[in-house]
Amino acid sequence: MHDQSDRQPLPCPFEKMFPSQLQRDGEFYMKLAYNLAIDAWRQDEVPIGAVIVYEGEVIAAAHNATQSTLDPTAHAEMLAITQAANAIGDWRLNGATLYVTKEPCPMCAGASIMARLTDVVFAVPDPKMGCLGGATPLHEVPGLNHRVTPHSGILERECRELLQAYFSLKRQSRDQN
Amino acid sequence: MHDQSDRQPLPCPFEKMFPSQLQRDGEFYMKLAYNLAIDAWRQDEVPIGAVIVYEGEVIAAAHNATQSTLDPTAHAEMLAITQAANAIGDWRLNGATLYVTKEPCPMCAGASIMARLTDVVFAVPDPKMGCLGGATPLHEVPGLNHRVTPHSGILERECRELLQAYFSLKRQSRDQN
Repeated sequence: MHDQSDRQPLPCPFEKMFPSQLQRDGEFYMKLAYNLAIDAWRQDEVPIGAVIVYEGEVIAAAHNATQSTLDPTAHAEMLAITQAANAIGDWRLNGATLYVTKEPCPMCAGASIMARLTDVVFAVPDPKMGCLGGATPLHEVPGLNHRVTPHSGILERECRELLQAYFSLKRQSRDQN
Repeated sequence: MHDQSDRQPLPCPFEKMFPSQLQRDGEFYMKLAYNLAIDAWRQDEVPIGAVIVYEGEVIAAAHNATQSTLDPTAHAEMLAITQAANAIGDWRLNGATLYVTKEPCPMCAGASIMARLTDVVFAVPDPKMGCLGGATPLHEVPGLNHRVTPHSGILERECRELLQAYFSLKRQSRDQN
């Protein structure tokens, strides 16, 4: 078993956002994802959040949970996709949009294709691990039987600050122990 | 909800294999994965099976379950990875080998990287959707913080026949209804 003793719950210096329900645009949905990322931090998880929107309704909301579940597949996007399929009673999510605070990793980018999501909107691009254009455009592999369209840039600064602060404080905490 | 009325349980004309326990090599483990693929067919799922081996022991065994769960993430490899992490109490599966009857899709190839599997052995290459070299070598993306090594060729003919027969019978059944 991997040593978990270096995991210290760190107080989160960021506050949740309270977007107006009157304007349900991309920024509104990304703020919901941001709030889930804050929830993740408060539970000592990497602060990444995701929501899935279908016909104007939020049908799924989740945050990263790999540490508490010890499950490498428990990324925010994966948990949200499972919830969304359950909500509409179909594993094909055509017409749905995933909002996530960071560009999806290889697994989650692949899942967004396999789940037949129509759009994926991410806040922070990830040139190292992001697979919707950052490290590689997985969605452009020719033989795939479904095309997902990536979008980026909404709430990028806020979501990046949250992630960078988390990893920076984690490193400081580790160095002091 | 997607129409499920075209789903007819089709009798499986293939039999399980009974490999000797005395020689626990790649073929032995792939035969276990093949047997799980047969189980999948009998449950009206696409016949793909997977096992994960760690320190000589099978710590996870699963088959595709997307139809019964209506969950697009319920591929054999994903379910096996979750089981394996649970079995060893760590989300990092370094040192473990995944055996699967078909080359992993974008999601499952990504998951094998994120779960830090050491080796992935697949029976049937998939030039359209396979992401460990078939359609694209996702494991070779430069920035990734873990390298998984793919291997192929074991039990290829048997696992291919199983998959091809399943889809062929499914098409016939659909055309007759």
